[in-house]
Amino acid sequence: MAEAKREVSLVLAKLKEEATPEKIEEAITEYAKLVNVIPAMNSFHWGKDDSAKVNLHLHEGYTHIFESSFDNIEGVKEYEDHPDHAVFEKLLLSCTEKLLVITYQPTIVNLQK
Amino acid sequence: MAEAKREVSLVLAKLKEEATPEKIEEAITEYAKLVNVIPAMNSFHWGKDDSAKVNLHLHEGYTHIFESSFDNIEGVKEYEDHPDHAVFEKLLLSCTEKLLVITYQPTIVNLQK
Repeated sequence: MAEAKREVSLVLAKLKEEATPEKIEEAITEYAKLVNVIPAMNSFHWGKDDSAKVNLHLHEGYTHIFESSFDNIEGVKEYEDHPDHAVFEKLLLSCTEKLLVITYQPTIVNLQK
Repeated sequence: MAEAKREVSLVLAKLKEEATPEKIEEAITEYAKLVNVIPAMNSFHWGKDDSAKVNLHLHEGYTHIFESSFDNIEGVKEYEDHPDHAVFEKLLLSCTEKLLVITYQPTIVNLQK
């Protein structure tokens, strides 16, 4: 079965140690709200790094993962250029020590010949 | 609507410049095959970094993204400890310059009060 094409934007963040739980929760909530105000943004998920639970230490210090999905790369552009994204970005950066942003089109490998 | 819980393992790789397209294709195909041999592994997607298309340069040089999903963190452990994973890992590392591995439980923010 063919999957619908989509473009995923991944943000890996190392949050500042001094960022309070309230500030972190605010940043995540504001991030999630973008789904409602930016039409191109289809979904938003987040999670904390679980590497320690599997004894892996290849996470380069990143503590939080944010995943947004779009129909295509044009949607990611629309999102990046949206004024509400700029406002949110300031908030996220205020509690972030380092950030990695990468976008890709998730593709399944068809193993059948 | 509540989503089913799952654990996602993300691998960001910077592939070696000297890695041939054939070698890269072999690594991706072998990665995908693990879905069929490791029961805990539910899905596999991959894609190339599209940062340049949105004029973003925060990808830290990573060129490829691999996403595997599992029912829970125990599934990730089962995967990490599987002998076929060890064989595949050698292959991937042979064409990789640097690697970031992070695992998380994707969570939706419920914006309703």
